[in-house]
Amino acid sequence: MSSATPGLTWDLIQQARARIQGRVHRTPVMTSHTLDSLSGARLYFKCENLQNVGAFKARGATNAVFSLSDAEARNGVATHSSGNHAAALARAAQLRGIPAYIVMPNNSPKAKQASVARYGGKIVFCEPTLQARESGVQRLIEETGATLVHPYDDLRVMAGQGTTAVELLEDVPDLDIILCPVSGGGLLSGISVAAKTLKPPIRVIGVEPAGADDAYRSFRSGKIEPVGTPQTIADGLRSALGQKTFAEIRRHVDDIVTVSEEDIIAGMRRIWEVLKIIVEPSGAVGYAGVVAERLPTRGLQVGIVLSGGNLDLDHLPWLTQKPV
Amino acid sequence: MSSATPGLTWDLIQQARARIQGRVHRTPVMTSHTLDSLSGARLYFKCENLQNVGAFKARGATNAVFSLSDAEARNGVATHSSGNHAAALARAAQLRGIPAYIVMPNNSPKAKQASVARYGGKIVFCEPTLQARESGVQRLIEETGATLVHPYDDLRVMAGQGTTAVELLEDVPDLDIILCPVSGGGLLSGISVAAKTLKPPIRVIGVEPAGADDAYRSFRSGKIEPVGTPQTIADGLRSALGQKTFAEIRRHVDDIVTVSEEDIIAGMRRIWEVLKIIVEPSGAVGYAGVVAERLPTRGLQVGIVLSGGNLDLDHLPWLTQKPV
Repeated sequence: MSSATPGLTWDLIQQARARIQGRVHRTPVMTSHTLDSLSGARLYFKCENLQNVGAFKARGATNAVFSLSDAEARNGVATHSSGNHAAALARAAQLRGIPAYIVMPNNSPKAKQASVARYGGKIVFCEPTLQARESGVQRLIEETGATLVHPYDDLRVMAGQGTTAVELLEDVPDLDIILCPVSGGGLLSGISVAAKTLKPPIRVIGVEPAGADDAYRSFRSGKIEPVGTPQTIADGLRSALGQKTFAEIRRHVDDIVTVSEEDIIAGMRRIWEVLKIIVEPSGAVGYAGVVAERLPTRGLQVGIVLSGGNLDLDHLPWLTQKPV
Repeated sequence: MSSATPGLTWDLIQQARARIQGRVHRTPVMTSHTLDSLSGARLYFKCENLQNVGAFKARGATNAVFSLSDAEARNGVATHSSGNHAAALARAAQLRGIPAYIVMPNNSPKAKQASVARYGGKIVFCEPTLQARESGVQRLIEETGATLVHPYDDLRVMAGQGTTAVELLEDVPDLDIILCPVSGGGLLSGISVAAKTLKPPIRVIGVEPAGADDAYRSFRSGKIEPVGTPQTIADGLRSALGQKTFAEIRRHVDDIVTVSEEDIIAGMRRIWEVLKIIVEPSGAVGYAGVVAERLPTRGLQVGIVLSGGNLDLDHLPWLTQKPV
């Protein structure tokens, strides 16, 4: 890692905080005596499933869109995504009154298309390959002059996601550890920089499905490992780390652990049952690390980021994986 | 209604507020641009599904238990209930360190038994008839000296439930109307007294499943009508009004409207999808009144009480009522 590489700074996160204030929710932190008893720890759930567009992605996308100069903004923003980032970018662009071009694979779920369309995003379909998505965005940008906002490997996006930890530590200054799902690393990198700045002794742990453990392997090998073929119900956690996110994760994250599909489903269901909130499989992965007892959390004050709540209510894992 | 009948007063509600503070949650009020757009109104959801024990019942039970003198409290409290009141009373008794005796039909769902047991409630099973439940409680009271805490027809309980409206109007003083599910009437009576005291021009509307419309019929006939055989998925809304609750409802409630099963299921699902919180069918009945367009809410500021969030996640109405 060259020291000349500009990285994510506390300054960028503070600027992001000011920029997104009033434009995205300051999400609540929920607690439960029942879940505390089960874990032997004090658990503080940062509810990004209750964030605008149902995911933390609203933070980074909003920061990116409102970082643009008027001249840049005029031509709009573009990305390729079939997930929560697409809806988040469309929403942020709508707030600023500029176009958002979203390249989506032509096999994207209808619900995700509808979500982007609801926020006025202009959907451009492509073949469902990474190459088609990337060349689709490239072509769009050449045609429109739109600014690319990558889903995670972008300092503006990472800074926005980092504001999650700023709020969490304001509400619960005594945290010993933060657990956070990891995929492309936008959330984990942002959180790690913010948390270690505000509270250097805190531990920041990424949690990843064992069936998509590229971040786990990358963290250990020191270089970005390929994703392979992800085998996990956590459909938001199938991306590879980016160069910028990995650099911060190597510097600031204490460990990455993996959890099984059973742990993810059990954790998700327990959150629904006890906290009475909807969390998607990817969003429950941090808590699955506690359920799986993969971490020494007993007796500690544990922050857990519930990263999103978007899923198809007709197909719940505990119903589709066994007979009704 | 004799003027000598002591009714629910604002004083009792204020005392309840002070008594339960710190012992139950001050629940959040949620809003959504998406749901506002769909309805043409500004909707404010009072989230009693996020209350302790997952329902507003925690308020009334806690007020009742902490109203007792030390001498009364020593022998504990008793009730018959297969629902949220049982868990709420067990929890409140546990907080005070006194026994709670709960008479439950021997066919009560295991989940409800577990919930009572989790809070240390002593379960006494009986045959699943109203007569067996009432005589079971009577016998228990004679044996133990416990104080009966009725699920709704009790001023202490009604006063506790009324605190829901006090908080809601503190958070949203400009409300034009409050929608509230009605069953035995504890919540609706408490809310109507609180809301009309704090803001006389406000409208308070009870919403009831068409398949269990005894409150609707009672409100129109002026006398308590029998329940008949309730035909509704809203399993928390199958009780008849009580004498005390009906008296307040006649005095203070503006109207009672009914909604179909389809409206209830559609409303419940929309809350899950958009607000990302778990509400049970009974808890969604107030919002179903908006979905059904049974009320002139367009352009108004509408408070909606989401009364509870306890249900069996293995049997969701949109999955069990049609093939998966």
